[in-house]
Amino acid sequence: MLMAQVIPQLSINQDRLKADFDALSRIGATPEGGVNRPALSAADVAARAWFASRIEDAGLELSVDEVGNMSGRLWCDNPQAPTFLLGSHLDSVENGGRYDGAIGILSALEVLRTVKESGIQLPCNLEVINFTDEEGSWLSFFGSLGFVGQLRDEDINDSKTDHTAFRTALNRVGLHYTDVFAARRKLTDYNGFLELHVEQGDRLERANVPIGIVTRILGRSTYKISFFGEAAHSATVPRNKKKDALQGAVMFLSQMYQLDSVFPQGMVNCGKVSVRPGAYNIVPEEVNLRVEIRHESEDVLKEMEARIVDIAYECAEAHKLRLNTERLLHRRVAQLSDAVKDIIENVCQAQNIGCMRMPSYAGHDAQILDPYLPCAMIFIPSVDGISHNPREFTKWEQVILGANVQLQTTLRYIFSRA
Amino acid sequence: MLMAQVIPQLSINQDRLKADFDALSRIGATPEGGVNRPALSAADVAARAWFASRIEDAGLELSVDEVGNMSGRLWCDNPQAPTFLLGSHLDSVENGGRYDGAIGILSALEVLRTVKESGIQLPCNLEVINFTDEEGSWLSFFGSLGFVGQLRDEDINDSKTDHTAFRTALNRVGLHYTDVFAARRKLTDYNGFLELHVEQGDRLERANVPIGIVTRILGRSTYKISFFGEAAHSATVPRNKKKDALQGAVMFLSQMYQLDSVFPQGMVNCGKVSVRPGAYNIVPEEVNLRVEIRHESEDVLKEMEARIVDIAYECAEAHKLRLNTERLLHRRVAQLSDAVKDIIENVCQAQNIGCMRMPSYAGHDAQILDPYLPCAMIFIPSVDGISHNPREFTKWEQVILGANVQLQTTLRYIFSRA
Repeated sequence: MLMAQVIPQLSINQDRLKADFDALSRIGATPEGGVNRPALSAADVAARAWFASRIEDAGLELSVDEVGNMSGRLWCDNPQAPTFLLGSHLDSVENGGRYDGAIGILSALEVLRTVKESGIQLPCNLEVINFTDEEGSWLSFFGSLGFVGQLRDEDINDSKTDHTAFRTALNRVGLHYTDVFAARRKLTDYNGFLELHVEQGDRLERANVPIGIVTRILGRSTYKISFFGEAAHSATVPRNKKKDALQGAVMFLSQMYQLDSVFPQGMVNCGKVSVRPGAYNIVPEEVNLRVEIRHESEDVLKEMEARIVDIAYECAEAHKLRLNTERLLHRRVAQLSDAVKDIIENVCQAQNIGCMRMPSYAGHDAQILDPYLPCAMIFIPSVDGISHNPREFTKWEQVILGANVQLQTTLRYIFSRA
Repeated sequence: MLMAQVIPQLSINQDRLKADFDALSRIGATPEGGVNRPALSAADVAARAWFASRIEDAGLELSVDEVGNMSGRLWCDNPQAPTFLLGSHLDSVENGGRYDGAIGILSALEVLRTVKESGIQLPCNLEVINFTDEEGSWLSFFGSLGFVGQLRDEDINDSKTDHTAFRTALNRVGLHYTDVFAARRKLTDYNGFLELHVEQGDRLERANVPIGIVTRILGRSTYKISFFGEAAHSATVPRNKKKDALQGAVMFLSQMYQLDSVFPQGMVNCGKVSVRPGAYNIVPEEVNLRVEIRHESEDVLKEMEARIVDIAYECAEAHKLRLNTERLLHRRVAQLSDAVKDIIENVCQAQNIGCMRMPSYAGHDAQILDPYLPCAMIFIPSVDGISHNPREFTKWEQVILGANVQLQTTLRYIFSRA
């Protein structure tokens, strides 16, 4: 049997992968050693052009969809066969690092090139994909949301928010906002998605394990929580008549942070506070908080949300304030494919590579695709857990190891389904 | 003796005062029933022009100094005599009320008119003054600071802050920023300052007392308190590595608010919070707080400041943050003149008017003048304590009462010093 003989010997071309990594790292490079490639920025546009030429050089079929997702396809002989998807994102956060997203794109491309060169008769098509704006410079997961048909009208039309700048940015890569809903793929054409990514935490490094098998991607909800009191001269208003929106908000945040011990696996963050009217000597009338909650269990996430809303009401009442809580976003926990997780583990065991199962605290495009097709993620270590930072770093041998595990997992999975 | 016969009978002209109040209330009137006359705005410019014509109509000598303070002078016969000052401010906060400042200007003008008409031989000159920008649309107490020569170079020159807009606003009333330091008066020419003002609190109303004798004006310090942590992905950074500037700031504010019970006569307020970088999923790197502290005792104010700085350091340490505390402003407690306070009390007792002694929680121009000349303030009730609000209101008979107490106090004081 061809597969049993060839596949276990197959490995990616390290030098070619390294050359690609060095070339890509120069696009949008920052003095601090990272990259600055926000989605649809000049640097991202340059990275996309470079990636298109790499796809064509590899003899893959290049295409770009209506939300700017770039694909390179390796067709099998069977026109009825489904497609197995690999990839990640080329865009970075502002002043980000060289590995986040980029490594997943390059390893996926290298997997396709290696398979193509091996001459293996594929049981299904392979597709490498660069999802547009994973990081959310404009809209987090814009590309993958478009891919699965989950973009909402308000994401791009100007009913609630002015999207003029976003639309203009789309024009830079030849896209038009009225077309984005046409990006939806026929999802039954796909039999899976596998993404390699840096961990963005230090669990692998601390355990001295090179491969992480992502068990779940944490669910995430974001809230805008607004306390409304009464503006007043800070010194003349009697204390018992004060309706200080900030005192309510501070009480709320204090109690919210204490949820860390109630939900040790959960995560809460308040990333922004705005206070109106905003003068030294005026009692705050309105405070808006941007709060984010994550958990790997959908039920516990729900419980955390209920707790946070309860606390907000208690604190508003304690300070005689009006309250508004608005859930702006909810991303369900991604359960990911147990079949693919097992294959990653088998591949590691067969090659004597250490691996461990772990949830992903950060969101990924796999979370968007997960409800529709079998998805999985391979993590490789982040030195010191540094992420979204120019100092982001992964040892090169761990990148190689990860790419090879992705190659082997892809082959084992698609042949197991054949 | 002329004084003993005439003065106790003398009272202000209610109708003329009411006509002035109605006319002034129309300048910058808002639909909500208040006025919007920020210093040097079009409405303030109009109010100033109106006031100039009222000064001239009253036969007083009009002058405007280099910081825009407008004076109307009633000269006595003795060219060596000092001047007794009365007044307040025509400017309002944005969307403010009709009484704050305006009542003090109008009653002072009415006192001068009444005295002039009475034909009393004055032992000193009288001067009604409109201090520029008491409310701080540009710089709190700009006029009175200029009067006493306490403007700082940085208040108007562009070393630290861009004052272009302020300078342009000054031009609207014919002033030039390079001249403002020349506004300083020869302070020994003045033998006192008496301001009538609305209380901006509800103590008089609750006690059912029409006249407040201000014992002190609270000292005030403002701080910029900055906590510095490390920006990180909210979900991937391990908890023990988080350096969340907001968690430190919230802990600080919680403890700061508890000082209310430690210093029952003190006042603390945080009027503004800014958080960087400000995204849902980023651990806050930097939080800036604008904090204000007031107390009627200079020593206790010092103690409060020390406590607040200590708390800030403790909270920064607890959350592994760096800290910066900067005292931006300090206004000393104004002790005010005991002699004038006693005269106000005597006047009220002689006329069977209820009065009570009380500190002023809000700052006033008298606080700026207090180190240099005997200052005093008369408070009249604010219905429901509402202040800096279109719903600000004082019953008209209480305005009349206040103006008459100001008239009598002025006369008794200047004759007692003669």
